[in-house]
Amino acid sequence: MANKKITSRDIDFAQWYTDVVNAAHLATYSNVKGCIILEPSGYAIWEMMQKKLDKMFKETGHKNVAMPMLIPENLMNKESELINGFAPEVAWVTMGGSKKLEERMCIRPTSETLFSDYFATKVKSYRDLPLKYNQWCSVMRWEKETRPFLRSREFWWQEGHTVHSTQEDAEKETKDMLNIYKTFFEKYLAIPVLTGKKTEKEKFAGADYTLTIEALMYNGVSLQSGTSHYFGQRFSKAYDIKFLNKDNELENAYQTSWGVSSRMIGALIMVHSDDDGLVLPPNIAPIQVAIIPIGDDSKVQNLVNETYTKLVDNNVTAYVDNTDKSPGFKFAEAEVNGIPVRIEIGARDLENGLVTIARRDTKEKYQIPYDTNIVEYVKELMNKIQEDMFNKAKIRNESKTYECHKLEEVEEIMNNNPGFVKAMWCGNEECELKMKEIRGTKSRCILENHEPIDNKCIVCGKDAKELVVWGIQY
Amino acid sequence: MANKKITSRDIDFAQWYTDVVNAAHLATYSNVKGCIILEPSGYAIWEMMQKKLDKMFKETGHKNVAMPMLIPENLMNKESELINGFAPEVAWVTMGGSKKLEERMCIRPTSETLFSDYFATKVKSYRDLPLKYNQWCSVMRWEKETRPFLRSREFWWQEGHTVHSTQEDAEKETKDMLNIYKTFFEKYLAIPVLTGKKTEKEKFAGADYTLTIEALMYNGVSLQSGTSHYFGQRFSKAYDIKFLNKDNELENAYQTSWGVSSRMIGALIMVHSDDDGLVLPPNIAPIQVAIIPIGDDSKVQNLVNETYTKLVDNNVTAYVDNTDKSPGFKFAEAEVNGIPVRIEIGARDLENGLVTIARRDTKEKYQIPYDTNIVEYVKELMNKIQEDMFNKAKIRNESKTYECHKLEEVEEIMNNNPGFVKAMWCGNEECELKMKEIRGTKSRCILENHEPIDNKCIVCGKDAKELVVWGIQY
Repeated sequence: MANKKITSRDIDFAQWYTDVVNAAHLATYSNVKGCIILEPSGYAIWEMMQKKLDKMFKETGHKNVAMPMLIPENLMNKESELINGFAPEVAWVTMGGSKKLEERMCIRPTSETLFSDYFATKVKSYRDLPLKYNQWCSVMRWEKETRPFLRSREFWWQEGHTVHSTQEDAEKETKDMLNIYKTFFEKYLAIPVLTGKKTEKEKFAGADYTLTIEALMYNGVSLQSGTSHYFGQRFSKAYDIKFLNKDNELENAYQTSWGVSSRMIGALIMVHSDDDGLVLPPNIAPIQVAIIPIGDDSKVQNLVNETYTKLVDNNVTAYVDNTDKSPGFKFAEAEVNGIPVRIEIGARDLENGLVTIARRDTKEKYQIPYDTNIVEYVKELMNKIQEDMFNKAKIRNESKTYECHKLEEVEEIMNNNPGFVKAMWCGNEECELKMKEIRGTKSRCILENHEPIDNKCIVCGKDAKELVVWGIQY
Repeated sequence: MANKKITSRDIDFAQWYTDVVNAAHLATYSNVKGCIILEPSGYAIWEMMQKKLDKMFKETGHKNVAMPMLIPENLMNKESELINGFAPEVAWVTMGGSKKLEERMCIRPTSETLFSDYFATKVKSYRDLPLKYNQWCSVMRWEKETRPFLRSREFWWQEGHTVHSTQEDAEKETKDMLNIYKTFFEKYLAIPVLTGKKTEKEKFAGADYTLTIEALMYNGVSLQSGTSHYFGQRFSKAYDIKFLNKDNELENAYQTSWGVSSRMIGALIMVHSDDDGLVLPPNIAPIQVAIIPIGDDSKVQNLVNETYTKLVDNNVTAYVDNTDKSPGFKFAEAEVNGIPVRIEIGARDLENGLVTIARRDTKEKYQIPYDTNIVEYVKELMNKIQEDMFNKAKIRNESKTYECHKLEEVEEIMNNNPGFVKAMWCGNEECELKMKEIRGTKSRCILENHEPIDNKCIVCGKDAKELVVWGIQY
């Protein structure tokens, strides 16, 4: 009994995605081309993500700041690789009020420029280092094609920017933050991710190297889900960030940056949701439990209120649906909105001393005695749901991960049942471009500490250097 | 023993303000003209403000959303009074990448336009109403003269936007939100405020009327600190927000908006701080207690750690300063940063079974037995500090509030010892303009439910209509 407003994901995945976004009221297009509105249900998920991540950032010594949203052109130009990367896709402010600006400014597509310029004024000695800052904001990239959460002109994100006195310290930060992202995805979003290094072609413009977490959607398409960049001294040389080191010599500092965005909401949808709507893992769901009275019997209402109070007093988020809609309608609404657990309390069940608990992910229903310790029961069930959702995604990923030795195999897979393809690569960009001819297949990441699976590059047949995961992408 | 980096506030208030902002590392100017950077200590205060206010908004049924930061010109033009109000001071985006846009867009100076356009798609029936939304974001106004927190091109704020099915409901919301602001200022910021209605001249462009909270700074200058606007049907007519009412007739909806901003940080500084730096009320201080060991005696360190653990376990935010700086330096640093309570733990005091507690606001020091229940002691002290700070500001406001009956009196006051001037007004804008000739004195608000203090307008001598509070302003 699937939701009628939602196309089946096995019939038309793209339409299914749009239908889920609309049916769960997560976001809608505005009259500003290519820009979305995060509606209350979508923003509540973003707030949960912010809350959990922000705690992890602060526990590891990061501090929040806010930078201006505009970047003057001359400042942007200082880092030439960066501007080449972003120039085609920024919004330019040329007028202030009715006056033409002497110098145009772009709306930040990212803030390496502003942070570097700021760090240059702050950093004098190795004693000042490291500086580990983060900001929550929106950024703007002038994309041509857009899809809610996955790609829109404006999107919401966090960008961490740090500056260190040694290469070792900065490289450690780059790795540590990638691991925080991995932990966040696995523990809260119930999404397993691959981690590795981007190829030169796919790395962030201006970085020495980029580490990435890559997730696989239900339809086998890859999603770059978070990145952590090591800059070495590139920005510190362009922006003159120098400090007196322990030997009392001036040295350019070492930097990193890292970010995840509202795109994660798209990943949540495409990994877990189904033809009935959104499915949210309990650890990230803004509301974890829906309590639905059946009938308005006073015994029912009393137990509904008691259950609600017990849950919220024990830090389980819940709501009671006391509207005058039918129970069936309320069930469907809780389902489409992805509420992980539903408690149905009705007079007939109560006569037998029972209430009904439904889990959103599997649609299973359990009848339990109403004298059960409901808080404990729900918490255990939520742990189970969280774990099961992660494992289900993991098993699917494994079933969609392939080892290939010939291009024809890749072609066969990407055209029929795409996923992560492991294959050896010579390190040459030409071979990446050849691979791209297969439905836009790109390198996701270079796997580290993995045994080679062949000694030849899958494309050119020359000596292989790296084991790479490939995939088609959003 | 005032901080040497800080000019005395009684000698040069403007320089003192800048010095405090710098010495406490709250904000700094960026290389983007007129835009500031919120540094970690400043941003932490903003985060506390967000946390407390957000809770109050959610408890009263408001939901957070995010709107685009850009507004197409045609959308902005729909509400002509609004555009006349903001047109001179917006930033215009005219290029996307390397292409000229067909229609220019401005960076939001405020978002009535976007919310109204969105509401028009959402509102069909009285059953859909009210919609009570809020967003936390930054906005941009092309100001010519800027001062950190008080006026900068970009600033951080929240803007609430609500839509209702009746005038009564919308007017109630307008008042309720003003009261939430008043409560927040008094309970958390320890800043007493006046509330009232703005005159036609001073109201928000496009509003039927504007309610305001007005605070008085140490130097007697007024600060408009938060506003709540009742729009009636102005926007709903311009943006076609119609709903089927209970009589099944199409009716234009009733709207409100309300906002407070990072300007509140400026108010905190100018009401409470002193020549030693920042003074923060405990209820808004990101860190409430500084624990400073004197010497590195193991007995000292043990008690320092024990004290820290006890405090944080009981939801008091604290830090231990274990750097190798001198105790005197650490004391001064805690002072300049406005930490409400300082605990000094040293070997000599411990021999006598004592620790020292210093409060930031009065600089008083107390020696207390170290077996005191430190958590309870600190919590009570913080309550006392919070209360005393509020009362001190309140008494100062009262001493700087005057009743005037002649223009010469106003002139005398504003030139020598400015403050809030209560005076009767005929309701005529010309009289407001006359008043403005006195050092820029403006009406702060019309007091409601107050007895008239005269029957003639203080400016023209004609029949008085309103009791108005006047002041010079930031």
